[in-house]
Amino acid sequence: MRAPVALHGQITVQEVDEPEPGRGQVLVQSLACGICGSDLHALGTPGQADLPLVYGHEFCAEILDYGPSTEARFPVGTHVSSIPWATGPDGPELIGYSPRFPGGFGPRMVLDIDRLIEVPRDVDPDHAALAEPLAVGLHAVNRARLERDQPAVVIGCGPIGLGVIAALVAGGHGPVVASDFSAKRRALAEQLGAHVIVDPAERSPHDTWEQFGVGPGVSSPLLGDDEVVRRPVVFECVGVPGMLQGIIEAIPRHGLIMVVGVCMVPDQIFPALATDREVALEFVMGYTPHEFGESMTRVATGRVDVRPLVTHIIGPEGVADAFAELAAPDAHAKILVHP
Amino acid sequence: MRAPVALHGQITVQEVDEPEPGRGQVLVQSLACGICGSDLHALGTPGQADLPLVYGHEFCAEILDYGPSTEARFPVGTHVSSIPWATGPDGPELIGYSPRFPGGFGPRMVLDIDRLIEVPRDVDPDHAALAEPLAVGLHAVNRARLERDQPAVVIGCGPIGLGVIAALVAGGHGPVVASDFSAKRRALAEQLGAHVIVDPAERSPHDTWEQFGVGPGVSSPLLGDDEVVRRPVVFECVGVPGMLQGIIEAIPRHGLIMVVGVCMVPDQIFPALATDREVALEFVMGYTPHEFGESMTRVATGRVDVRPLVTHIIGPEGVADAFAELAAPDAHAKILVHP
Repeated sequence: MRAPVALHGQITVQEVDEPEPGRGQVLVQSLACGICGSDLHALGTPGQADLPLVYGHEFCAEILDYGPSTEARFPVGTHVSSIPWATGPDGPELIGYSPRFPGGFGPRMVLDIDRLIEVPRDVDPDHAALAEPLAVGLHAVNRARLERDQPAVVIGCGPIGLGVIAALVAGGHGPVVASDFSAKRRALAEQLGAHVIVDPAERSPHDTWEQFGVGPGVSSPLLGDDEVVRRPVVFECVGVPGMLQGIIEAIPRHGLIMVVGVCMVPDQIFPALATDREVALEFVMGYTPHEFGESMTRVATGRVDVRPLVTHIIGPEGVADAFAELAAPDAHAKILVHP
Repeated sequence: MRAPVALHGQITVQEVDEPEPGRGQVLVQSLACGICGSDLHALGTPGQADLPLVYGHEFCAEILDYGPSTEARFPVGTHVSSIPWATGPDGPELIGYSPRFPGGFGPRMVLDIDRLIEVPRDVDPDHAALAEPLAVGLHAVNRARLERDQPAVVIGCGPIGLGVIAALVAGGHGPVVASDFSAKRRALAEQLGAHVIVDPAERSPHDTWEQFGVGPGVSSPLLGDDEVVRRPVVFECVGVPGMLQGIIEAIPRHGLIMVVGVCMVPDQIFPALATDREVALEFVMGYTPHEFGESMTRVATGRVDVRPLVTHIIGPEGVADAFAELAAPDAHAKILVHP
């Protein structure tokens, strides 16, 4: 089959082997697949692109065939999605980052039948493909264990931050304060239901705490028994050095910083300041299979309106250019590939 | 009155003004007062010792007299303690670090009547003075929200780490793994009830996780719904750069790092590793008044046996030398001053 292949920092469409489903697996046709920041990172990291790979782990697909001795649990033609893991001889491998399991930028993929979830036929595959990145936001919000009316600040409104905003709004939390330097991203945050939109070039998103009844608190824990009814919560969705310390300096006492953005280089913090304010940092990643299913349900029922997130749709030949465009964060939210 | 006075990095016994209780305050005689690491830090920090101060905020005292128009809630002669805050004209000030409120290294102090807690007459004032540092450990353990049989690793068995161990054991948590390079401190940890004693020069305290059913966990959150029954919890009680990253590298997945030691200089972490393991860092400081009272109850009832913690008792003239001795961490747990 022909597919966009990542190798040595370049993506070119070329011929690759057809994947073959094993026992307990299913062959599918990829219908739509999102480009993820992890794909950009993998392509740009020397040593991580020495094998030819077909990326794509945010997909909606259609069942074409079953592997040998495999129960045909769904009719051929059923639309499905899956968490991006499939089982090889040595255990589960990540779809899209394993030579054995090409991802959804290519036409055909192999999935584990036990990980399939059905996508209702009336759900646009473009929207179903967004359940995966939205699950990351849902996981981060679940981990924060918020009260229903708990205010939250989201720093950075790229796809991850937007996923967090969608999960906060769908979960009945808020007011949700969304902060991003990009006007386009701020507009997307507003479309997803964020209640307060902040351009950090004009004011700090932390200026809103007192307005929502989350004050700077007492100056010392010794002065009173702190009944923290509404804990200040910030979702860090940028992932560059200095973000954590900036939030530690600005968040009110007893603040919880959910670290969703992934900072790939060493970072510096000043622990004594975090101690003084009794701040907590909770690093989160990915999602559970349950959260993936819940995310798909939210997309399918329209509880989360994902339409604003799809900013561009391309064919296989457009993948290389799309990677270049996504390097400029302002241009797009999510680009989908139609293989 | 004559008292040990800290000024410009030196402690000398000299004449200072008698403190005078205001309305709502009480004059007390200090019976016993512990030397805290914060005192050493304050003395050694340029610019923080430009005013003459009488340190001492871990004390047991005896009521001598009441301020004007103040209800005599306890008979003169009652033994009391208090969180180390007293109210001045501009609000609460920290006893022992305010020129207005000399601390327990001197003979007489002023306390707020509303912050007093009575110390039963049959409780040794030396032991009651330890309620304050033990409250710090109790607060850290409370903040960790542990299950009763949850294993925990304590890194560093100085006074703070020992307070954490005492609170863990009294709270029915464990097994408690205590780690310190010092043989003397390891012995104290064992006397306080730690279940596993580790010399980190010989093996990593993190080697014990699997033994207690807290394994390294699955390699990815995508593989299964993680029901984390027993979350790995590490109490960091050292407070020097590099400790946090060392624990992030060693703690199992979904680990919780309670940061109790105070690192006063910038520190470096590698956030992507914390993300990969979904680690949480919770910085804690001090205690609530309720926890202070609970700590005193534990001391008074013998639920925490504090006797091993008192390693030396000195008079006012011995304070300067004691500060020098405490710079060598192996020599002592807690030195008490009898003013």
